[in-house]
Amino acid sequence: MNVTVWNEYRHEKENATVQNIYPDGIHQTIAEFLQEEGHQVKTAILDEVEHGLTEEVLAETDVLIWWGHKAHDEVKEEIAERVKQRVLAGMGLIVLHSGHFSKVFKKLMGTTCDLKWREADDKERLWVADPSHPITAGLGEYIELEKEEMYGEHFDIPAPDEVVFISWFEGGEVFRSGTTFKRGNGKIFYFRPGHETYSTYHNREIQQVIKNAVNWVAGSNRARPVYGNAKPLEQIAEKG
Amino acid sequence: MNVTVWNEYRHEKENATVQNIYPDGIHQTIAEFLQEEGHQVKTAILDEVEHGLTEEVLAETDVLIWWGHKAHDEVKEEIAERVKQRVLAGMGLIVLHSGHFSKVFKKLMGTTCDLKWREADDKERLWVADPSHPITAGLGEYIELEKEEMYGEHFDIPAPDEVVFISWFEGGEVFRSGTTFKRGNGKIFYFRPGHETYSTYHNREIQQVIKNAVNWVAGSNRARPVYGNAKPLEQIAEKG
Amino acid sequence: MNVTVWNEYRHEKENATVQNIYPDGIHQTIAEFLQEEGHQVKTAILDEVEHGLTEEVLAETDVLIWWGHKAHDEVKEEIAERVKQRVLAGMGLIVLHSGHFSKVFKKLMGTTCDLKWREADDKERLWVADPSHPITAGLGEYIELEKEEMYGEHFDIPAPDEVVFISWFEGGEVFRSGTTFKRGNGKIFYFRPGHETYSTYHNREIQQVIKNAVNWVAGSNRARPVYGNAKPLEQIAEKG
Amino acid sequence: MNVTVWNEYRHEKENATVQNIYPDGIHQTIAEFLQEEGHQVKTAILDEVEHGLTEEVLAETDVLIWWGHKAHDEVKEEIAERVKQRVLAGMGLIVLHSGHFSKVFKKLMGTTCDLKWREADDKERLWVADPSHPITAGLGEYIELEKEEMYGEHFDIPAPDEVVFISWFEGGEVFRSGTTFKRGNGKIFYFRPGHETYSTYHNREIQQVIKNAVNWVAGSNRARPVYGNAKPLEQIAEKG
Repeated sequence: MNVTVWNEYRHEKENATVQNIYPDGIHQTIAEFLQEEGHQVKTAILDEVEHGLTEEVLAETDVLIWWGHKAHDEVKEEIAERVKQRVLAGMGLIVLHSGHFSKVFKKLMGTTCDLKWREADDKERLWVADPSHPITAGLGEYIELEKEEMYGEHFDIPAPDEVVFISWFEGGEVFRSGTTFKRGNGKIFYFRPGHETYSTYHNREIQQVIKNAVNWVAGSNRARPVYGNAKPLEQIAEKG
Repeated sequence: MNVTVWNEYRHEKENATVQNIYPDGIHQTIAEFLQEEGHQVKTAILDEVEHGLTEEVLAETDVLIWWGHKAHDEVKEEIAERVKQRVLAGMGLIVLHSGHFSKVFKKLMGTTCDLKWREADDKERLWVADPSHPITAGLGEYIELEKEEMYGEHFDIPAPDEVVFISWFEGGEVFRSGTTFKRGNGKIFYFRPGHETYSTYHNREIQQVIKNAVNWVAGSNRARPVYGNAKPLEQIAEKG
Repeated sequence: MNVTVWNEYRHEKENATVQNIYPDGIHQTIAEFLQEEGHQVKTAILDEVEHGLTEEVLAETDVLIWWGHKAHDEVKEEIAERVKQRVLAGMGLIVLHSGHFSKVFKKLMGTTCDLKWREADDKERLWVADPSHPITAGLGEYIELEKEEMYGEHFDIPAPDEVVFISWFEGGEVFRSGTTFKRGNGKIFYFRPGHETYSTYHNREIQQVIKNAVNWVAGSNRARPVYGNAKPLEQIAEKG
Repeated sequence: MNVTVWNEYRHEKENATVQNIYPDGIHQTIAEFLQEEGHQVKTAILDEVEHGLTEEVLAETDVLIWWGHKAHDEVKEEIAERVKQRVLAGMGLIVLHSGHFSKVFKKLMGTTCDLKWREADDKERLWVADPSHPITAGLGEYIELEKEEMYGEHFDIPAPDEVVFISWFEGGEVFRSGTTFKRGNGKIFYFRPGHETYSTYHNREIQQVIKNAVNWVAGSNRARPVYGNAKPLEQIAEKG
């Protein structure tokens, strides 16, 4: 499987705490544990030409992973639209954490994707709400993270096709933190955890979820339906 | 209830057949049968300033009905975005027929909204697939239309919250022809029939569906959730 | 609207704490605040003939509210089946708290309806997860209950049509605590809070939810679809 | 994968037409094309001890396929309940055609599962309504069957998790003919075609759907969640 991990890659260069946790960037950490699975993994970042997401790169990508936060506005409209169209054509998409406010995710959802948030070292516990879902394979009943940013309801998304995880936060909130959506021929998984100042993507269970999700969102080269003007398949009676 | 009926209003001025069926425009026909229900009904058309959809008009609109076809591209980006934001804030929206390709609907759905079509006087039979739904109140098991344009699957929309009608077409196709979606605080009903060269909006059962849908999509002035930075509701332990 | 409030009515007679909170039974407390809305409210209890749920009573009931806990097994199979059939025929149903394990609810869901639980004075906070839903009208962002029994995920129900509330519990769990389901012509709302040793049904916000839910689940005398052998509506060609 | 094909196996012994099409029974025809896929396939029939569905057989079955029609009532209550419990525990289930009225399916759905029907050699065309679904892999836009029994809406099932196929019938009806449901840890696919007097299960495309569905409903030995009394994960404050 060809996986492309996209990262804004700004916090890591500007903030010592983040640099310490992800010295080569969040994208490299994610790429490494996906390579263990035997995937062909590329990375792409905001500051590359076309944000590293040329037509060629996207055409060869089965699953795109998206992490962005402080520079959503710097993502060019045409690149965001290109990614969206590629998802509709069948590429899998995993949107992580603050990617909820990315142009790509908002375009695909059609809503504000707004939510509550707090950076206060909340403990987070992600409960499995759909234990039959392949994305939960290998997990126990919940994943516990000692410290994370809080995201709280209401999360302004369309009713998800499936709610896979629901988070409990120490400060008193809840959040639908793992949700799936089909759009066109593409499958999408939104996964909440992953604030840049925490070591979340080094957590083995979080890695397991992302590994599972790569398999789940992966397209299967199914043919696009035929749209447009269509000849009748049955005879149509003449009318007055 | 304040209802605004928006119409592109071009076919009626350019095509004698359409003019004959809707001499004052599709919007007037729809407005008239909604007035019978006691609603305050306004109309708005593409060629008015801001397409008749000023901030003031939208702020006072509880339910917006949308009919467009040949001039989707002439709808200004900022007006389409304004309508979308108003839906997310709680205005009900009914999208009719070829409005599936309107900027407003595509922005709210996040998909291509593409489909099959044919203008060949197909008989259409809209079967009630969700008889407990208020939008079907007063109907029998199906609505039959002697002649209509065909729309066929695959219809490229997100999985609807509810599938209320499924159409059978004489030429051999099927279509999810009445579907509901919640987006933000707004409720949306897409209703398939209504090609401009047929007298569909004079049909009493079609009118009944639109009347029912106005009541169903109408917002209820519920408060918007609070988004953004949030103080903890419980004490958060100090961590290392 | 004709509402029937059904209660097992055992805890109140056997436990002084419960008796103190609900001296005339949980059913009377619920009946009283629903009468304020102008509904015609009856009550029925386990120890009545046919559990108070004769064919006549059910035929005249628009909305049935169900509270049971320790005596689910004493509900006769044929009465549970009768209630189920009446729901499928269009009667609204609100299942409260421990009613998740009632015969009626399990028959309608088709799953075990199992869950985690704990009686330990957990604080509960019910977050509104679907602010556009009529069942949340008049509420703020959440309802807070100082003390309640905990119910935790995984809750073994089919994917609900809508998730209206998600609960946070002091002891670390979450729960989909307000969920809707359509079954046949009937609408169902499951609402989690209401352990008998707490004064939950005296809480004004909890009462508001139940009042809203009565309106939401109420049927509308829509005709049943016609099932069984059907004549063709179109001519079928002779085949070899 | 261990697949068990269950068949009532009565029509084939009593009706020359059916015997001619399925000389060894519908179950043998299905078993044969599934063996081509490398699955371990067993068959079981109504007239065997415990209908061939002993605890041992079910414990070793990953996917159960069910065909029944005229003898639903002869399936023992305890065997139907046993199959249901095994589905909830993770066994995949494919229900074919008239199996919509089987005890197993009705127990899992909670509704009447009623529908319209007609035996009149209708042409059927099953349109793919969800082209991104793995169950549609390898298919074109639709499957056409020259002659089949008609099933028409309204089909009284809970809102399916996914609608994969919608059928068009020559006589004028439509039907949600391929639908998925998760119940407990089990996945269910209902697939409409397969009246005993037609050669439907010899059709290569119909076989492809059933092959795809076997892979899709197959469980993955995920651990059951823990239900029942639970200790707190966080400290609960003492209350008054």
